[in-house]
Amino acid sequence: MQQLLVQLPTQSYPVFIGQGLLSNTDLLRRYVSSSQVLVVTNHTIAPLYLEAIVSVFSDKQCDTVILDDGEQYKNQQSFCQIIDTLIEKKHHRDTTIIALGGGVIGDIAGFVASTYQRGVNFLQIPTTLLAQVDSSVGGKTAINHSQGKNMIGSFYQPNAVIIDTDTLQSLSDREFNAGLGEIIKYAILTGGDFMQLIEKALEGGLSKYHSAVLLDIIMACCQIKAKIVQQDEHEQGIRALLNLGHTVGHALESYTHYAKWLHGEAVSIGLYCAALLSQDHCNFEPEFVQKIDYLLRLANLPRRIPGAINSDKLIALIKNDKKIQHNTLRFVLIKAIGNCYLDSKVTITSLHTMLEHATEEE
Amino acid sequence: MQQLLVQLPTQSYPVFIGQGLLSNTDLLRRYVSSSQVLVVTNHTIAPLYLEAIVSVFSDKQCDTVILDDGEQYKNQQSFCQIIDTLIEKKHHRDTTIIALGGGVIGDIAGFVASTYQRGVNFLQIPTTLLAQVDSSVGGKTAINHSQGKNMIGSFYQPNAVIIDTDTLQSLSDREFNAGLGEIIKYAILTGGDFMQLIEKALEGGLSKYHSAVLLDIIMACCQIKAKIVQQDEHEQGIRALLNLGHTVGHALESYTHYAKWLHGEAVSIGLYCAALLSQDHCNFEPEFVQKIDYLLRLANLPRRIPGAINSDKLIALIKNDKKIQHNTLRFVLIKAIGNCYLDSKVTITSLHTMLEHATEEE
Repeated sequence: MQQLLVQLPTQSYPVFIGQGLLSNTDLLRRYVSSSQVLVVTNHTIAPLYLEAIVSVFSDKQCDTVILDDGEQYKNQQSFCQIIDTLIEKKHHRDTTIIALGGGVIGDIAGFVASTYQRGVNFLQIPTTLLAQVDSSVGGKTAINHSQGKNMIGSFYQPNAVIIDTDTLQSLSDREFNAGLGEIIKYAILTGGDFMQLIEKALEGGLSKYHSAVLLDIIMACCQIKAKIVQQDEHEQGIRALLNLGHTVGHALESYTHYAKWLHGEAVSIGLYCAALLSQDHCNFEPEFVQKIDYLLRLANLPRRIPGAINSDKLIALIKNDKKIQHNTLRFVLIKAIGNCYLDSKVTITSLHTMLEHATEEE
Repeated sequence: MQQLLVQLPTQSYPVFIGQGLLSNTDLLRRYVSSSQVLVVTNHTIAPLYLEAIVSVFSDKQCDTVILDDGEQYKNQQSFCQIIDTLIEKKHHRDTTIIALGGGVIGDIAGFVASTYQRGVNFLQIPTTLLAQVDSSVGGKTAINHSQGKNMIGSFYQPNAVIIDTDTLQSLSDREFNAGLGEIIKYAILTGGDFMQLIEKALEGGLSKYHSAVLLDIIMACCQIKAKIVQQDEHEQGIRALLNLGHTVGHALESYTHYAKWLHGEAVSIGLYCAALLSQDHCNFEPEFVQKIDYLLRLANLPRRIPGAINSDKLIALIKNDKKIQHNTLRFVLIKAIGNCYLDSKVTITSLHTMLEHATEEE
């Protein structure tokens, strides 16, 4: 088991990464001092791990909420469903909410934890690659609005994050690959040795069964993220770089009502779009645009916008992006692999040009 | 104009108190650096002050949401209405939300500010006595749930609080008196000179027209609150004392679907209940129970539970109180005027006895 400490000005918390952690009763109980627990999960995860988790807390009042699986359920209705359960089951302010699942579960359970009675204990147990490398660390919580991804949320750090890499083996190939999308994002952001590691792993046909490599990759991603979050918890500056590929990615997700792509798939298309924009705006070299495309293809991820998507409507959704400042869109662009920055000079015209190049013919 | 600084570990903000501040364009603009503003208010306040506020921001995109007036509208629906407006009018993460109104407006606008795009700028302009002495300072935001008051919310501090005491003159007597309920709470909590000031003022027939005295009282209340909040922003300890009278008060409000009493009125009954419980549990002297009753009567506030209220149902709602720890109710009790503490030994039996004594015959 490896361990990492996320150290913030007012709070610190550990991230544990290892195999078989869901069987580690002592570890699971260490961050649950309350006599009440609510486990939030979904119908895909519940049959696999819920019973094991619930049995760990058999001496406590342990309630569960099982949501439908999918980004389209990360909404106001699910939020109310969880709140209603907490109230109905008389959970008090010293209760603990456990998120058992992927990014959707972590985001919504975290948002509930941050707002129920103005904030309760929160434990993240991410079970997808995407949640393990990205969304479970850093304290971003949210639900979606029909007009924009993660429009309602908070910054609320968990008490601990417990990552059992064995859970990856139960992922579908599609879920696993979606996680690779965020990993490739980290590789573009940091470059260097990590980029080489990822490239080599993808060329070697990285799969969910390569436990040792995956453990190293997950640890590295969590370290990169922790380092950035520690400098800028509330995304006043550098943290925005973690949004590489997300401006177009989020717009694609809300365009398709969160039902067509997994988040990591939409980010994959968004990464290719960011590469194209970067070529146009800051002389990002074409060979590296190709390299990004190549890595995403190795991961079996979508990289092109379907022809059926209307550019004007997509741009209207892009204009809801949370990074906008002084009414100006800001994009994370790539000067070179390992050297990204926030650019506020992207015009609507150049967006149209980029989208044209990124869109498949119908 | 007087000024007070609330100094928290990660943030400080000023509270300005004075006459005519709503005409002070420079002051109102000082804490709004954004090019977008959303003013949240209600149908009672809007005809009085909204035009003046909007005109201050005529060079910006200034949108408004006008809610119905009343605690029963501090709910999920109003929350969604404000969020939908923000999205529809394309407000970005650097927008500013202004709460123009009483505690309901401040609480709900603050909750929206804390969650829209994970947090935007927030300015409090409280226009009721209750909001000026209590709810606008300290960063508690919330909406109600049918089963419990303020069940969904956050701790989110404003960028500034601007208190124009002239607005008190447009309050109904009922609204004004409700604010006196919270002021009497502060007097019980602190005792000493402040209690003498309040007693003298109430005996002298304090009304909304006594501007000079009111300014002193509001300043003193904000100072008391700031001092406590600075020690315990997230209510891990001492801040819970500000809940004196609120355990029963909140239960009464949710029992009557937030429609029968103003918050300060429910707190008034709750203060009398807390005095009775204190007499029973910690030898709070009967003459001081009478004194509290006397002060509340001077303020023309309700002090008894109507006979139609069912004790068992009320106690069921009391059991949703946010101060509960380890499944145990905790009440703020009064050892002596100026000496309150958190008690976890109140039994259901003694609650029944107290409610019997506090309830009017039908």
